[in-house]
Amino acid sequence: TLSVATVSLAQMKTEDAIKFRQAGYAFMSWNMGKIKAQVVDGAVPYNKDQIVAAANVIAAVANSGMGALYPAGSDKGSGFHETKVKPEFFQNMPEVGKLAGNFNTAANELAAAAATGDQGAIKAAFGKVGESCKACHDQFRAK
Amino acid sequence: TLSVATVSLAQMKTEDAIKFRQAGYAFMSWNMGKIKAQVVDGAVPYNKDQIVAAANVIAAVANSGMGALYPAGSDKGSGFHETKVKPEFFQNMPEVGKLAGNFNTAANELAAAAATGDQGAIKAAFGKVGESCKACHDQFRAK
Ligand code: HEC
Ligand code: HEC
Repeated sequence: TLSVATVSLAQMKTEDAIKFRQAGYAFMSWNMGKIKAQVVDGAVPYNKDQIVAAANVIAAVANSGMGALYPAGSDKGSGFHETKVKPEFFQNMPEVGKLAGNFNTAANELAAAAATGDQGAIKAAFGKVGESCKACHDQFRAK
Repeated sequence: TLSVATVSLAQMKTEDAIKFRQAGYAFMSWNMGKIKAQVVDGAVPYNKDQIVAAANVIAAVANSGMGALYPAGSDKGSGFHETKVKPEFFQNMPEVGKLAGNFNTAANELAAAAATGDQGAIKAAFGKVGESCKACHDQFRAK
């Protein structure tokens, strides 16, 4: 029998999958930027509600199952623009899974830290999320 | 004194604001599609965890303060592509605020319904979210 993932992938066009993953990452980066500005750089005054909301976006995107947005064949193609994924992504799924798991854990810890309002804890958790984004980009995203 | 919003807007380029809003809407539409497939059309078997995650994305995006992504002057310009916002958006802020508020309420109700696992309630809440997207598009998004 077909798995749920197979069925839903079968229905999604490659270009849509690429567009949606580019969208998810771009929207996270806006929210990472808000946390950086308010909690790391102090360029904008800290506003707890805004930081909770930003961290909730990052956790929700992390928990959304973006693996489904990497169907076979989507190492090439254009969503909002030509994909930047490296072919290695599709040849090294255990490593991708490990990095995605690290990202997932870090994102949920950031949301938990944001809810406490403890800026030191938020800053530390933000740093770990940033490292988990970078770890994936270093290996699997073209410059 | 400058408000927080003014400071953060001053730091964001128009093209980034347009890109981020296009990203937020596109990523929501992927998640709306999952709920439609599993709970409305039944094209994919219902999976509670996936629907909770999808509804949490929609609520988190709704709660993220996307109004900050409509700085003055962003009625024209290109993010991932040329903006489709209508100039009327910037001339009718009370109406935009009303529609955004309806969307926000509906999105949070959808997340609450998803958490219960009651597919009838999810379907009803999904319908209200869809209406709230459409209400804004009908008035403020170009074809
Ligand atoms: C498991 C891998 C992985 C993780 C984790 C990850 N990324 Fe990425 N990211 C990618 C890949 C692959 C692409 C290229 C996607 C494409 O173009 O198809 C990408 C693209 C992007 C882009 C460009 C989007 C666009 O097209 O405009 C941004 C910005 C970005 N990531 C930010 C982040 C941030 C911020 C995080 C963490 C909060 C993150 N990423 C976590 C793999 C990852
Ligand atoms: C308050 C207004 C408003 C609400 C609410 C709203 N939208 Fe939109 N939407 C817009 C506008 C304006 C644009 C055009 C943005 C641009 O191009 O700058 C847009 C663009 C889009 C796009 C195209 C994105 C792209 O560029 O690829 C999609 C898809 C979309 N919306 C889906 C949704 C969904 C799904 C919902 C609800 C879950 C929703 N929208 C709620 C106003 C709204």
